[in-house]
Amino acid sequence: MTDKRVYNFSAGPSQLPMPVLEAARDQMLNYNGSGQSVMEMSHRSAVYQQIFDETKADLKELLNIPDNYKILLLHGGATQQFGTVALNLLHKGRADYIVTGQFSGKAAQEASKFGDVHIAYSGKEGGFKHIPSQDELDIRDDIDYVHLCNNNTIYGTEWNYVPDTKGAPLVVDMSSDILSRPVDVSKYGVIYAGAQKNMGIAGLGVIIIREDLITPHKENIQVLSEYDTMVKSDSMYNTPPAYAIYVLGLMLKWLKSMGGLEEMQKRSVAKAKLLYDYLDNQDFYIPHAEPAARSNMNVTFTTPNKDLDAKFVKESIEAGMVNLKGHRSVGGIRASIYNAMPIEGVEYLVDFMKKFAEENK
Amino acid sequence: MTDKRVYNFSAGPSQLPMPVLEAARDQMLNYNGSGQSVMEMSHRSAVYQQIFDETKADLKELLNIPDNYKILLLHGGATQQFGTVALNLLHKGRADYIVTGQFSGKAAQEASKFGDVHIAYSGKEGGFKHIPSQDELDIRDDIDYVHLCNNNTIYGTEWNYVPDTKGAPLVVDMSSDILSRPVDVSKYGVIYAGAQKNMGIAGLGVIIIREDLITPHKENIQVLSEYDTMVKSDSMYNTPPAYAIYVLGLMLKWLKSMGGLEEMQKRSVAKAKLLYDYLDNQDFYIPHAEPAARSNMNVTFTTPNKDLDAKFVKESIEAGMVNLKGHRSVGGIRASIYNAMPIEGVEYLVDFMKKFAEENK
Repeated sequence: MTDKRVYNFSAGPSQLPMPVLEAARDQMLNYNGSGQSVMEMSHRSAVYQQIFDETKADLKELLNIPDNYKILLLHGGATQQFGTVALNLLHKGRADYIVTGQFSGKAAQEASKFGDVHIAYSGKEGGFKHIPSQDELDIRDDIDYVHLCNNNTIYGTEWNYVPDTKGAPLVVDMSSDILSRPVDVSKYGVIYAGAQKNMGIAGLGVIIIREDLITPHKENIQVLSEYDTMVKSDSMYNTPPAYAIYVLGLMLKWLKSMGGLEEMQKRSVAKAKLLYDYLDNQDFYIPHAEPAARSNMNVTFTTPNKDLDAKFVKESIEAGMVNLKGHRSVGGIRASIYNAMPIEGVEYLVDFMKKFAEENK
Repeated sequence: MTDKRVYNFSAGPSQLPMPVLEAARDQMLNYNGSGQSVMEMSHRSAVYQQIFDETKADLKELLNIPDNYKILLLHGGATQQFGTVALNLLHKGRADYIVTGQFSGKAAQEASKFGDVHIAYSGKEGGFKHIPSQDELDIRDDIDYVHLCNNNTIYGTEWNYVPDTKGAPLVVDMSSDILSRPVDVSKYGVIYAGAQKNMGIAGLGVIIIREDLITPHKENIQVLSEYDTMVKSDSMYNTPPAYAIYVLGLMLKWLKSMGGLEEMQKRSVAKAKLLYDYLDNQDFYIPHAEPAARSNMNVTFTTPNKDLDAKFVKESIEAGMVNLKGHRSVGGIRASIYNAMPIEGVEYLVDFMKKFAEENK
């Protein structure tokens, strides 16, 4: 029990900025003089429609989304899109997947239920420490799309270029690095992301899709998976995850107030550099990802052994930091330092790491 | 703009009890000494798991759910279940749907993508004012299940008996009257409901399913629609709509503190009686639903003409009541008086109705 806030290094759901939490708190009983909580608002009311429209407009502005893209705010997070993308985009029935971690593997597995999925690259044997170069990709001709996951939360790797797909639309799961840096949206066919890492809370998937990829749906898919129906109904075929959309809106307003994505990129790079510079200049911890593949969002490493990993986690909690335990499939330590993590949190972690290394050498 | 709370008669999302909103507000920056908002919690953390487990346990207790039923807390609300039920329960490929309103019609339409759907009754020609008696149902032999919607939000009708299905499992959409009265869960194969009417906020579907209906999933459905996978992963194959589950938990604790479902039924009956008794003893407003089919959740009526309907809605807003406008497919007025609407709100509405009738006769 603590009266103080902890530093939360969770990979998602994850820490939110104080101004976002404070706004949610202060508006809980009465949003903006409406006499209602946003939780209670009819999604068909003017007051909610304004929140919804502003959220989409702010996302378009922040990510500089071209006019020929549609924004969908849907139920189910990113995982729901694994199959939805395939069900909507497979026409020839062929897609290539670049597998650089567990989530891209799951996306490929899900899509293979609905079409011929070719693994254009797999980093599994190498322990997912690597992001492939263009030369390492075996992309087929005559496919519907290429899929990749932009940042691999579990392994701490991140793409730093956009691969050539031989003209096929590129579909990217951007769940764990969306809004952490500017991206050229026009290079992608579909961008999708769960909101609970870098832009809000769980239960919401944000989908940015190029208009020419929205085609009449096949008859045999569930209605909430029909991109055309969702576009026509502006994501409101049924009641949308309305409160999660409101929190996304608060996050976007906070990001704008902070200076937008250029500023967030500077901050992300600075935060990650603190950790990587330390890791590269000591011999106690072992970084997981290859230097060239390192993520600015999730920094992964191990101590010399599993007992010390456990001790590190235990003592970090006592020091007021939570969720530093690595994913069960990798072990060790993972520090997720999304937009909402202040640099003070990272400095505090590095100081703790130094002290822990000193005491346990 | 108002400093005061309004009475919110929305059909969903809808008014929440003050103690629920106050708890959400007070716990926003630091839940129970955890140093985190529930919004920020890893869904794999012990502190969140406790919220999740207590929510399921409280639901089981309140609804007296037998041990041979599983509770799922899933993305997508009730609409996602329209197809999911069909995809999981159709083995013979045949199901019968009782259509008493728009949502049961949509459920039938969605299921017909995936199997042979027979309409066992349709109230469409009668303007959906009626709930059929057993004799009016044309239920086939040798079907996988029968589906009905327990309360028809748009038309203001509600089932007050459980029909005989000739042994087929009964699947019920209970979105708009779940937790408003005790139900005998053992009479149903599947109960599903969106949370945003009587038990929380949008983005969450609650599914209560008899164990023998959970069978190995078919290969060709999206993973989040696989009941067996969702049961095995305890609704956490991916990050669940974690904050919506927390709000459900707050609602359940409030319902328990109020005396449970027997007490909510007393209150619902008393609130509805205030409105119906008034409607039956005046000659200005025209009630929509047949008396025998009347809902205790949504009370629907019209004024003598559309201009007066619009005037009623406008003046009700000025008087501090929102969302009394009827659904666009019915018009007129709809007062949704779910669990969170206090009797004072209904008394206030009836007084307003009397005054409005007096002034506009």
